Order: sequence, then C-alpha cells, then structure tokens
Amino acid sequence: MNLRIPGPIPVPDDILQILSRQMINHRGPEFKELLYRVTERLKTVFATENDMFILSSSGTGGMEAAISNTLSVGDKVICASIGSFGNRFGEIAKRFGANVEMVNFEPGTSINIEVLEQALNDHKNVKAVLVTHNETNTGVTNNLKQVAKIVKKDPSRLLLVDGISSVCSIPLQTDEWECDVVVSASQKGWMLPPGLAFISFSPLAWKFNSVSDMPRFYFDLIQYKSYYEKGQPPWTPALSIIFALDKALEQIIDEGMENVYSRHSSIANQVRNGIKAIGLSLFPDISVASNTVTAVKSPDGLDADILRKQVQQDHDVVLAGGYGPQQGKIFRIGHLGYVKPKEIDETIDAINLTLKNV
Amino acid sequence: MNLRIPGPIPVPDDILQILSRQMINHRGPEFKELLYRVTERLKTVFATENDMFILSSSGTGGMEAAISNTLSVGDKVICASIGSFGNRFGEIAKRFGANVEMVNFEPGTSINIEVLEQALNDHKNVKAVLVTHNETNTGVTNNLKQVAKIVKKDPSRLLLVDGISSVCSIPLQTDEWECDVVVSASQKGWMLPPGLAFISFSPLAWKFNSVSDMPRFYFDLIQYKSYYEKGQPPWTPALSIIFALDKALEQIIDEGMENVYSRHSSIANQVRNGIKAIGLSLFPDISVASNTVTAVKSPDGLDADILRKQVQQDHDVVLAGGYGPQQGKIFRIGHLGYVKPKEIDETIDAINLTLKNV
Repeated sequence: MNLRIPGPIPVPDDILQILSRQMINHRGPEFKELLYRVTERLKTVFATENDMFILSSSGTGGMEAAISNTLSVGDKVICASIGSFGNRFGEIAKRFGANVEMVNFEPGTSINIEVLEQALNDHKNVKAVLVTHNETNTGVTNNLKQVAKIVKKDPSRLLLVDGISSVCSIPLQTDEWECDVVVSASQKGWMLPPGLAFISFSPLAWKFNSVSDMPRFYFDLIQYKSYYEKGQPPWTPALSIIFALDKALEQIIDEGMENVYSRHSSIANQVRNGIKAIGLSLFPDISVASNTVTAVKSPDGLDADILRKQVQQDHDVVLAGGYGPQQGKIFRIGHLGYVKPKEIDETIDAINLTLKNV
Repeated sequence: MNLRIPGPIPVPDDILQILSRQMINHRGPEFKELLYRVTERLKTVFATENDMFILSSSGTGGMEAAISNTLSVGDKVICASIGSFGNRFGEIAKRFGANVEMVNFEPGTSINIEVLEQALNDHKNVKAVLVTHNETNTGVTNNLKQVAKIVKKDPSRLLLVDGISSVCSIPLQTDEWECDVVVSASQKGWMLPPGLAFISFSPLAWKFNSVSDMPRFYFDLIQYKSYYEKGQPPWTPALSIIFALDKALEQIIDEGMENVYSRHSSIANQVRNGIKAIGLSLFPDISVASNTVTAVKSPDGLDADILRKQVQQDHDVVLAGGYGPQQGKIFRIGHLGYVKPKEIDETIDAINLTLKNV
C-alpha cells in the first residue's frame, strides 16, 4: 500500500521495529533518561528553550491543552482560520468558554496580514490569537513569521500555534518568532505512528496559566511540569511510541533540520510538478501551497471521492479527500515524514492512469 | 527484566510483534472493519451492550471522559475512595465543577457498604456516585456488585466506575450490576502497552450527557458516537495499539472470560502464599486483597523503597512502591495480564534473598 494521506504516514521500517520493544517502568531510571533525552531533542526541532511536554493523545488533545492551560472563561481571543483545523481550534476555545472572534479566510488562501491586523485593531483586549501554521485541510501554509510579528506588536498578547502538520517538516522558529505555545503530533513529519502530541510552553504562557480558570486534569501542564522534575510523566505514557520517538529524533537530529526541511520542500515540488504535468491544478495558489500536503482540484464533473476510490482499488495508492465544502471537489496527497521520490512517481502515475479510465 | 508493577505490564511476544505493523488510513474500510470488530469484543469483555468507545489516552483520560461527559457544574456527587486513585476520581470531578462529597475509607480496607448507604441517605440529591473497583494503590478490590446495588436503590443515580485495573482481570458485570460508565486502560489485564482507554456508556449516562454542561472536546463522546456510525474515530487514533488490541482480544475471547479470571485468581493466590511463606504480611486484609496487585508491608524498620531498589539491582525484578501515606511502608507486586507462575516464583525468591542481605 502507498499510503499518501497527510497522517498517519508510512513509518520507516527501522522505526516500526522499535515499537515491539518490551515495556519498562515509567517511574524508573531508564524512563527518566529516555524522557530527558527526547524532550531535549524535541526542543531542538521546535527551535525553542521553552518547556516541552509529551502528551499521550492525538494532536487535537494538544490543541485542547494549549487552550485550557492558558485561557480563562470570557477571554477575548481571535482565531484566524483558513480551513477545518483552524475552525476546530476556535471551536475548542469556545467550548471551554473563551469569547472567540473568528477571522475566516477563503479556503485555499492564507491569512491576509492586513485583515488580521485590522481585526486586532478593531477588537479591544484581545488576550490571545489562535493560528494554524499549516492547514492540512486545504494544503496551505500560513506565513507564521509575519503573523507572529503582527500579533506580537503587543508583547502581552499570547500566540497559540497549531503546528501539528508543520513542525519537523516546514520551518517553524518557536523562540525567534515568539510563538508562546506550539503543538505538534507524532503521526506527521516525525515519522511515527499516531498517539503522542508535543507541546511547547513559553514563560508568557505560564503567566497566563497562573490565572487561567478553565477546567483541565488529563492535560494539566502543571502536573506535567512538576512530574518532569522527577523524570516522570504524571500519567502512564504511550511507552512504545516514545521508544520509537527516541529513534526518530536521533535520525532527525543527525540529518539536521535544514536538510529535513529541504527534503520536504523537494518532495513537495515533485508532487506539484507531477500534478501539473498530468494536466491537473492545485487547489491553493502555488505561492501558499504546503510542503507537507498537496490539495488538488478534481477535473470538472468528476467527484474527487470516486477518483480516490478508483485509484486505491486499481493501484493501492491511498489519497485523502476534501472536508466540508471541499468534499468531492478536491483530493489531497500527503507527503510528510520520510517519502521516497519513487513513491511520488507511483502516486502521480496512478492518478494519471485512473483519470484515463474513469 | 521481570517487570512486576501494576502496569505497564510485560506484553506477550506475539502481541508485541503486531505493534510493528505499518500504518493504514484511519478513515478507510480496513480501519472500519477493525474498529467494529474490536469494539464488539470489548463489549464482550465488559459484559455490556452499552456503547463502547476507544480513547487514545491513559486511564486517567478515560476517568475525565466519564465525568465531563455526564455531570454538570454544581452536581452533587459522592466519591467513595479507598486510596489515591479514588481520590483522583473525586479530584477530577471537583476540577470540572461538581460538588463532590468524599467518603473516605482507611487505606487497606474496602468500601464499608453501611457507611456508603448512610452517606447516600444523609446527602440529598446525589446525582452520581464515583467508585474505584480495584484500588491499585493499596491492592484492594471493592465489592462492586454490592456497591452498585446500594447506589441503584435509586435508579436515577448514575454510577461511574474506575475499572482501569479490574476489567479483563477481575469479574465486572457492567450490565448485570447496572454500572453506567466503566473505564479501563490498555496497559492492564489487556496485555497491551499503555496508550488506549476504553469506556462503556449506558442509556442513563446519555441522558445525563444531554444536559451536562461541563466543557469537553478531545474526550467528547458525542463526537465518538457520531463518527462511530461511519466506522471512524473523531481524531487520529493510536493505530499501533489498536492493531495489538485486535490480537489480544482474539486471545482473550478464545480463552474465555471465566478462564481469564481464574488465571488471575490463581496467580494472585500464588503471590499471597509466597509472601506469607517468606514471613511477610499483606497490607490489606486477605478478604479484600486484589487479584491484580498485591500490596505487602515492608518488615519493621526497613524502608520499602530501599528494599525495592536492592531487589531490582540484584535480581532485575522491578516492584512498585507505595503512594502518599504508604510510601516507604509498603511495596507492590503487579500480576495482571499474562503472568507465568515461574515469574512469580522468581519474584518471591528475589525478595527473600534480598531480605536476607539487607
């Protein structure tokens, strides 16, 4: 199977093998050493000296942790959304009682900086801004550096970033760009199975935390912080995936972040050129197209979900569909983690051959 | 290493191997089939026809889900606690805004039914009762059948059960005993690594859910229920552990629940007899001693944590310590999941030899 969805991604064989390691005591010295090692390496990938925690959950759990650990009921926040995952971030904040102002942009486009700046000027007392770095849903990457600059014109404003499908694939400089909270998840560029979320937490985030009144327990980062000092997680962690994380991080740090990013950029170019070569068009403008997932318009009159089904049936290539308003209109090709150029060639060929027959 | 803590447990080799399976599309037909199969089998083990959901979290996440999906802010609830995990259940309910009445029992004892009944009579409008079936912290199993009978004298009262270290090891008849919500976790009797929680949810629990106002998103069971109808999880699940769950459930159902329970009972007897034979005493009375974890008093004047450290250093046998008031006074031997009698013999021998030398 050629699994070409934007997570779960195919996990390299040597990392898969580590998953079969036998359990250890999560409150013993061996785990302590492992926890400290992977946490330090995660900080390297996130480019941060902020606190870093490993949660046993999907990325959505990490998004909830970002919100419930910082905001208070009634806090005015702006959620800049360019798709379903942006909407989800805003929805979580609403559920927990924040006063959320959605600033939505047309699907397929990125955040318009002027519009965001205007919104920040129009609304008084905006405590925090929620942003998706890479919108998996539409295949668009926001210019997070620019967004952060606008948000941080007032340095007391908190910036919460969903970096789930960007960190470890697309450059994200947590500290340099002043991102207070950044969330990622294991089944993305990290080359791991799903089951872990990673969250970085700045001093300003802790300041918000000290007055935050949203309820939390499983995702309570105060517990994570106090147990971390003992080299332990507060709750029993998904050990197998942490063993695999150790291996993956070793490879990622060895390769070097610049090489990891250019590997993703080069594979993304191959996908985009291939799509163009078979006569199809990208859903977003190429200037904002993501390096981890490519959203492609289905040819006029052809339901993208029918095309996907046929591609899988005939060629064992698994593509992702569109969500919400894009369902049936676009399909998506995932290309994060370790992808071989040959797998992309096979994907493009499979789509091309299927198009000739449907 | 002879890992004798009450979870994570040593995972049998054939199940460990499954963890190395390659990823699949969690929104595709193969996962749908897998999800439906494991969910039905989980219901068999829980002895329930209630809804059943698989969460990607530890058991603590499942406890939070039990509370935040049923209760409302200000609801009067009674938490019957016999140790740290009972206290945790009450603490989660408090964090989310319930009006929690703690009914605490002496560590090492089980719930006194008369005292619980009195508390239920004394407090008007008790909406729900929180109970730990098996208190891992003190090695005590409550008589859940009796507790449930008292709680359900008023059938409108909700019974939330932490069955994390009991389900699949110690008999728990969810439907027969009218347990509305029961939570378990993968790293216990299920013979799996940590990373998944299982939760059963009764019609009365759904009735509570329809008016519940506690905030939730990651653990929102309405989302789980609506996606389940499509054969999908709402968020990306910890796939590797679900693959392994499929294998473990096949073995458990093949073995038969009665055999699974008597295997645990027989191993527990072996542990208790072994402890007695080397001159040590159980922490709880034998009549309430758990079949999944045995809490043992450290000999007078000997710090249990020093003993544990020495046992690990000299014999590579890993024991668990006491929590809170029991720290240093007791040690605990985990014996859930698939345990070979030889492993217990080695454990007892290791403790005995160490005692002679310290």
